[in-house]
Amino acid sequence: MIHHGNPVSKGIAAGPVFLYQPFAAAVSEALLEESAVSEALNKYENARKNAESELKAIRARLETSDPEKAKIFSAHIDILFDEAMDCDIRELIECDRYSPDRAIDEVFEKYARILGKSPDPLIKERASDIRDVKTRLIRVWNGVAEKNLSSLPAPAVIVVHDLLPSDTATLDRKNVLAIVTEIGGSTSHSAIIARSYGIPAILGVENATTHFAQGETVIADALTGQVISNPTQEQLADCDERRSRFLAQQAQINSYMEKEAVTPDGVRVDIELNLASVSKQSLEGAKCTDGVGLFRTEFLYMGRDTLPTEEEQFEIYREVLTKFGDRPVTLRTLDIGGDKKLDCLNLPHEENPFLGNRALRLCFERPDIFRTQLRAAYRASVYGNLWIMFPMVASMDDIRRAKQVAAEVKTELTKEGIAFSPDVKLGIMIEIPSIALLADFAAKEVDFASIGTNDLCQYTMAVDRLNPAVSEYYQSYNPALFRLIHIAAKSFIDNGKPVCVCGELGGDRLGAAVLMGLGVRKLSMSISSVAQTRKLVNELEMKKAVEIAAKVLDLSTAQEVEKYLNEALKDILL
Amino acid sequence: MIHHGNPVSKGIAAGPVFLYQPFAAAVSEALLEESAVSEALNKYENARKNAESELKAIRARLETSDPEKAKIFSAHIDILFDEAMDCDIRELIECDRYSPDRAIDEVFEKYARILGKSPDPLIKERASDIRDVKTRLIRVWNGVAEKNLSSLPAPAVIVVHDLLPSDTATLDRKNVLAIVTEIGGSTSHSAIIARSYGIPAILGVENATTHFAQGETVIADALTGQVISNPTQEQLADCDERRSRFLAQQAQINSYMEKEAVTPDGVRVDIELNLASVSKQSLEGAKCTDGVGLFRTEFLYMGRDTLPTEEEQFEIYREVLTKFGDRPVTLRTLDIGGDKKLDCLNLPHEENPFLGNRALRLCFERPDIFRTQLRAAYRASVYGNLWIMFPMVASMDDIRRAKQVAAEVKTELTKEGIAFSPDVKLGIMIEIPSIALLADFAAKEVDFASIGTNDLCQYTMAVDRLNPAVSEYYQSYNPALFRLIHIAAKSFIDNGKPVCVCGELGGDRLGAAVLMGLGVRKLSMSISSVAQTRKLVNELEMKKAVEIAAKVLDLSTAQEVEKYLNEALKDILL
Repeated sequence: MIHHGNPVSKGIAAGPVFLYQPFAAAVSEALLEESAVSEALNKYENARKNAESELKAIRARLETSDPEKAKIFSAHIDILFDEAMDCDIRELIECDRYSPDRAIDEVFEKYARILGKSPDPLIKERASDIRDVKTRLIRVWNGVAEKNLSSLPAPAVIVVHDLLPSDTATLDRKNVLAIVTEIGGSTSHSAIIARSYGIPAILGVENATTHFAQGETVIADALTGQVISNPTQEQLADCDERRSRFLAQQAQINSYMEKEAVTPDGVRVDIELNLASVSKQSLEGAKCTDGVGLFRTEFLYMGRDTLPTEEEQFEIYREVLTKFGDRPVTLRTLDIGGDKKLDCLNLPHEENPFLGNRALRLCFERPDIFRTQLRAAYRASVYGNLWIMFPMVASMDDIRRAKQVAAEVKTELTKEGIAFSPDVKLGIMIEIPSIALLADFAAKEVDFASIGTNDLCQYTMAVDRLNPAVSEYYQSYNPALFRLIHIAAKSFIDNGKPVCVCGELGGDRLGAAVLMGLGVRKLSMSISSVAQTRKLVNELEMKKAVEIAAKVLDLSTAQEVEKYLNEALKDILL
Repeated sequence: MIHHGNPVSKGIAAGPVFLYQPFAAAVSEALLEESAVSEALNKYENARKNAESELKAIRARLETSDPEKAKIFSAHIDILFDEAMDCDIRELIECDRYSPDRAIDEVFEKYARILGKSPDPLIKERASDIRDVKTRLIRVWNGVAEKNLSSLPAPAVIVVHDLLPSDTATLDRKNVLAIVTEIGGSTSHSAIIARSYGIPAILGVENATTHFAQGETVIADALTGQVISNPTQEQLADCDERRSRFLAQQAQINSYMEKEAVTPDGVRVDIELNLASVSKQSLEGAKCTDGVGLFRTEFLYMGRDTLPTEEEQFEIYREVLTKFGDRPVTLRTLDIGGDKKLDCLNLPHEENPFLGNRALRLCFERPDIFRTQLRAAYRASVYGNLWIMFPMVASMDDIRRAKQVAAEVKTELTKEGIAFSPDVKLGIMIEIPSIALLADFAAKEVDFASIGTNDLCQYTMAVDRLNPAVSEYYQSYNPALFRLIHIAAKSFIDNGKPVCVCGELGGDRLGAAVLMGLGVRKLSMSISSVAQTRKLVNELEMKKAVEIAAKVLDLSTAQEVEKYLNEALKDILL
């Protein structure tokens, strides 16, 4: 019997099923007697304390082995003692005589639903955390012992309705052969974790927890998206063979991780890193990349009530610059608004935030934010090779205005006797069609450009990339996008100025081949795409890339482009 | 003493002030005794009936002279008997013991506030209507007689806080020299009415109703935005002279209303009409235009609970086609979503509606809407020269899919033995950057294109054109926009296919000059821009327009473009 799902983390494995049924939170509907209210409140308080002890114990275990994961449990403790939710829960117990478990369920669900509606994946993620803490608290209230996946008896294929953040953080990685869940898409928490651990995962397999029996052998094929129960000996042998082949391919790709990216005909391409935090793990990329092509600074402003100070920012910028030494670190100034909201900035609601007062536009209005960030960046510039990049540039006015602010900040620092590097480069993101069309002027007034293909595609095709109702209209391979990139890249190349691509297209092999052919010599991506891109560059002759790009500019649809690229690159993609 | 405001309808006049103070609705805060509730409900019912009688009387007066305006009062009667508001009002009277006037005030204000927040100017407009009816109802409740501007004793300059829709609809036009208000921008109700009547208007003059005395002489200068009290004899003479000059200029411009638009060096430009309804007034334009460049069909779907039937649509399309005879009527299929919502379509909320599931995208999902409209259009095609145009096209896929539906509809009609013209042209709006960039392909597969400059500017510059927080970033003269128009227009011209511009840029003289130079030979606009555009074409040599366009493509900012165009065209614009 074959069951189908969405393969979100590639790989294949066979083994016994470990059916994981986490605690199911059923709550009491009966109302409390008036005399029972004060005892209920005490018990609620005790349950919170016990849940806190559990969380602290997990955090302590993780703090040495994986400090990043330990932070999740600090966040869970914060949720447990969230004042607004606490207040709502107490009111339901006191005024409405709800039993505490029911009050917890209702209030936590309410908050999770609100956050779950956010289009921002980061905020949506918090809904899972709230539900995770809710389940823990109700379990503790019921006196049921903790259950998780931190120690499996033997290697197994985990089958579960959905993984909670606390399940994945404590996962017994060495014994998990594969993950099969009933719900979740390719951007869900489970998918992200599975990919980061390199565990094969198939999500959205309907009724998986009822189809498979505890201990039965299955093949979890996350190359095709199939889960096979009762496999035959032939199927098992085939699985073994494909697993070996897959792992060999992965090993081959990974062998390119630190290899210089030079085409067979001798053209070098810089492979740079997209950085969105400064954890130890994210800075690992310093070893095997030619610099930071996109240093997103939003993380400094997120999850806090006040703006980060100049000093805080300076310390972090210095850390990254020092780490990369002579290699460029391209710091993008605050790119907030649109899908990204901040607690420390009370932004008004907008009808179309993607077309609204975001990023550079917002920074022009808030010199307190913009100048503070630029001061911190310039101060840190003496520790490395700093490039500063402005997002959401639409016109030459934007460029001149941003450069003016940077010049004022430098004058100010000079007056104060504070040192900064004289070699800091100033550049722009090309993510709005108008500035791509005016790139000939832009290339004369800035030092470099970086093409943000995600937003550029969104505006060029008039499609909200987060709106599932129009996802078919968001076409990364649409030839219009390549034509626009061609116009922009050519202007910068003709002016001898570096042009990078830091959107998803740069880390995608089909896209990267076209970009190389269009003259782009810097590609910036997440660490997971580095090895495969280095391999591509080492195997693709520039002469061929140029031919490929010319052909793509002459095709009419995204589908034609994708088909042509798969055909043209088939020997390399194997 | 000179007071300043926003001149929203050009002109100049001197005369006595008519200070208009409409009824100010003050309401009783005292709560009702329980015994008084049922009488209060009766009185509320009576007040509604009396208000209805007033509205019916006004409507009857207007029905022969101005049937369009009469409709406003039918809408007011609907508001008066709106069930949801009635229910809320009765609840406040019965349960909270509110006096009816206070209940009316609170409930009507609540609904007006909700509608007033809409970015859609049409919905926003309804907030004014609700407030208008509220004031009438509370006045009637207080037994105060009706007061309006329907008969002025002598020609006068109206000074008022703000004009209500019912004031403007019944305005004694022959005696209104000018309008001065304390609030309102250039898209407000008062501004639109003033322009349509050709009455000079200066809005947003702070504290106007306290600055000016009843009967004092003022100069209302809506050429500069000044209101001068106590004018000197010299000022009055100057006003007279400028008034004569302005009227002479207007007369000169109007003399071009029906003159063929041919440049001095012999190039003809079609001047077409943007049509958004089929009232007698809007069809007036049939006399002096070369066809309909943009027939917006949204009005057929608005303000109703059910979708329009094929038969209803057919009748209206036939009326317009018959009216224009051989001249083309370019029917745009339903362009809903984004800022435009419909009562008869329950569309889900979207984070970024301008980048969402609107227009053609929505039509693909709803064949019941799309096919019905196409059937009606094809059936009507035998009565004139029909061109069908698809909005919100982003890719060649969209074009092929839309053409496929049209072909299926034709097959269906043929099978049913229903006649349609074999000459119907199929074309696209170019309002999304991607299709402008692929215009070479598009021009081979469609019969014509029309460039929608408003949306094209919005997407090209990533600016919501309805969001005041970013209005400075919406630049109609940005050279990037002209470059993109150049790419699109050139492809259609090279393929021998007509290309029109139907956005605001086409009816703007600076914009029209550049478009002519880029090879555009069809401009579509509202009737108010026709005469001035015909005059421009008759006075601008095509050779010069070509020079102007080439220069504009080589400038870097919107400001430079505007400055250059004003300079280059200064002899013509006078």
